[in-house]
Amino acid sequence: MDDAMSGRQPRVLIHDPTLRDGHHAVRHQLDREQLHAYAAAADAAGLPVVEIGHGNGLGASSLQIGRARLSDEEMLDTVRGALTRSRMGVFMAPGWGTSKDLRNAVALGADVVRIAAHCTEATVTERHLDVVRSHGAEAQGVLLMSHMASPEQLTEQCALLVRFGAQAVGIFDSAGHYLPADVTARITAITAAVDVPVIFHGHNNLGLAITNSISAVRAGASIIDATARGFGAGAGNTQLEVLVAVLDRLGHSTGIDLRRLLAAADTAEEHLMPAPPTIDSISLVSGLAGVFSGFKKPVLETARRQGVDPIQLLFELGKRQAVAGQEDLIGDVARQLKQDLTRADETSPTTSTERQAP
Amino acid sequence: MDDAMSGRQPRVLIHDPTLRDGHHAVRHQLDREQLHAYAAAADAAGLPVVEIGHGNGLGASSLQIGRARLSDEEMLDTVRGALTRSRMGVFMAPGWGTSKDLRNAVALGADVVRIAAHCTEATVTERHLDVVRSHGAEAQGVLLMSHMASPEQLTEQCALLVRFGAQAVGIFDSAGHYLPADVTARITAITAAVDVPVIFHGHNNLGLAITNSISAVRAGASIIDATARGFGAGAGNTQLEVLVAVLDRLGHSTGIDLRRLLAAADTAEEHLMPAPPTIDSISLVSGLAGVFSGFKKPVLETARRQGVDPIQLLFELGKRQAVAGQEDLIGDVARQLKQDLTRADETSPTTSTERQAP
Repeated sequence: MDDAMSGRQPRVLIHDPTLRDGHHAVRHQLDREQLHAYAAAADAAGLPVVEIGHGNGLGASSLQIGRARLSDEEMLDTVRGALTRSRMGVFMAPGWGTSKDLRNAVALGADVVRIAAHCTEATVTERHLDVVRSHGAEAQGVLLMSHMASPEQLTEQCALLVRFGAQAVGIFDSAGHYLPADVTARITAITAAVDVPVIFHGHNNLGLAITNSISAVRAGASIIDATARGFGAGAGNTQLEVLVAVLDRLGHSTGIDLRRLLAAADTAEEHLMPAPPTIDSISLVSGLAGVFSGFKKPVLETARRQGVDPIQLLFELGKRQAVAGQEDLIGDVARQLKQDLTRADETSPTTSTERQAP
Repeated sequence: MDDAMSGRQPRVLIHDPTLRDGHHAVRHQLDREQLHAYAAAADAAGLPVVEIGHGNGLGASSLQIGRARLSDEEMLDTVRGALTRSRMGVFMAPGWGTSKDLRNAVALGADVVRIAAHCTEATVTERHLDVVRSHGAEAQGVLLMSHMASPEQLTEQCALLVRFGAQAVGIFDSAGHYLPADVTARITAITAAVDVPVIFHGHNNLGLAITNSISAVRAGASIIDATARGFGAGAGNTQLEVLVAVLDRLGHSTGIDLRRLLAAADTAEEHLMPAPPTIDSISLVSGLAGVFSGFKKPVLETARRQGVDPIQLLFELGKRQAVAGQEDLIGDVARQLKQDLTRADETSPTTSTERQAP
């Protein structure tokens, strides 16, 4: 079959957070052997950047968010020893991490440092982007839960990240909520406004992660995040080896050896995860509702404890635009739903089920 | 976030072959209880058509292709008893099934009967389409492994199916090889040439099943196949509940109750499959090479037995345009590869690995 799109297209830089975003799927419990096995395989395949750490980034290991098996230092030290060609990346969200964490990470060999902010709060990244630059690592700025902001807002926020010194900026579809047209509109607006590489990070809740990533590339993004087998919370991330194969068919080179990448993905499936992510009903609804994938486990636990419908709970959390860090809201909304249902049952037996329709 | 595409769009008829194409993933071993549980759940969700049977269709249960646990009669009888609203569908490929199988299926309550042919062999369907029409069931004609034919060839073949009496015609991406632009080109050409509903059936080897199905709808297809959790061989089919949710966000109504559909998908995951399909390295390469998904198991077994690389074997089978029924070719190609590798090793130790690059 003829590949309608083939012919040379812009080169794409693949950024691989398998050992950071994938960490969410195993409650941050990867050990030295697992980190080394995957990092070495990704390095052999020629991945440009291998990002590692606690799922929520530097300094995030804690009782509330979840303790990682290894310290940031142990993870950085292990992966540094496994990389010969790939650059080592780290991620930090101000509030969870500090300037000290950034200095340590750069001292331990981090080449690329991403400072992340909620999609409307780029201002919180100024000091940290400056710390990264001043210590000589590449500084990138990324906006989380970006479906909650308009193309105009995201463009303004990305311009701010560049003003703060970000050498690449972009958006995360943290909830896996985007349709391709949403990605095209946002990346087109951002690329038109900034003069640094633009990043897109997708999730697969609606089965559109590969397509959304391709839409981002066509709209001008040049750095795309993807993880081996889609390793990540809920429905998982954009599947790395699939993306590289599709980009190749579309004429975009990535500099990655597909055969070695398939071996790395097999290593990931065998050594990192109980099973590759799939789109179950809760993950699908989470994407529809626009709720952060990390909420899946607490939502299921709370729904069971409170005796409410987890799907209804997710749609309610979506309406209230809950974001990571607001896990407390899950219990509040669940209790509210339970009260409404009880009242509804007292008045009309059908109301509660009617209300459950999405 | 605003759904860029929302607003009323053409209605889409979802055709659900979970209990037929999904059957490949469990070597056709579903029992009465499993068939009844899923068919009843799909019926409750309002699926327009529930297709059932041996993975290869009516009359295909055999030693060579694989014996089903139940006879066609037992399967039809069981599902008929579970359906109150959904129409019952069956699939038949001339050569595996006969006119007698068709008459029995219609007598047992099949409402929609698909006659399938390789993408360039529509002529083999004439008599069987006529038998279906003459017994009062809806006759549909579908072309398998359609990536092996050009838009022009497929259009000509679909026009032939209509001339033979097909009341709906379409194409199967049996190998999961298409990129969205390939689907758009083919469905656009077919819809322009025929005056009956056009069908698209996708597979997810390249992570594009949802997007390819949406591309088909935008190009004019009005009947889309999808299975619960993507239940199917290899990387699986277009995931039914995800497709319905995305079509809804794009403004296309399907008449399906999403909440009940999610329950049906949960039932499928719990009762039909060991685990939902994922895109492993072999399935990805199978899609890239354009090889029928059903070849996955025999290819892995043959490669192990002959000591050759299954990925190289798949690319070779793709080059030779192997199609279902040509399983013998797998062994022939494997033996040839082994001879080449042996010779290569005798001459230059690097040749064999070089040749392995895709």
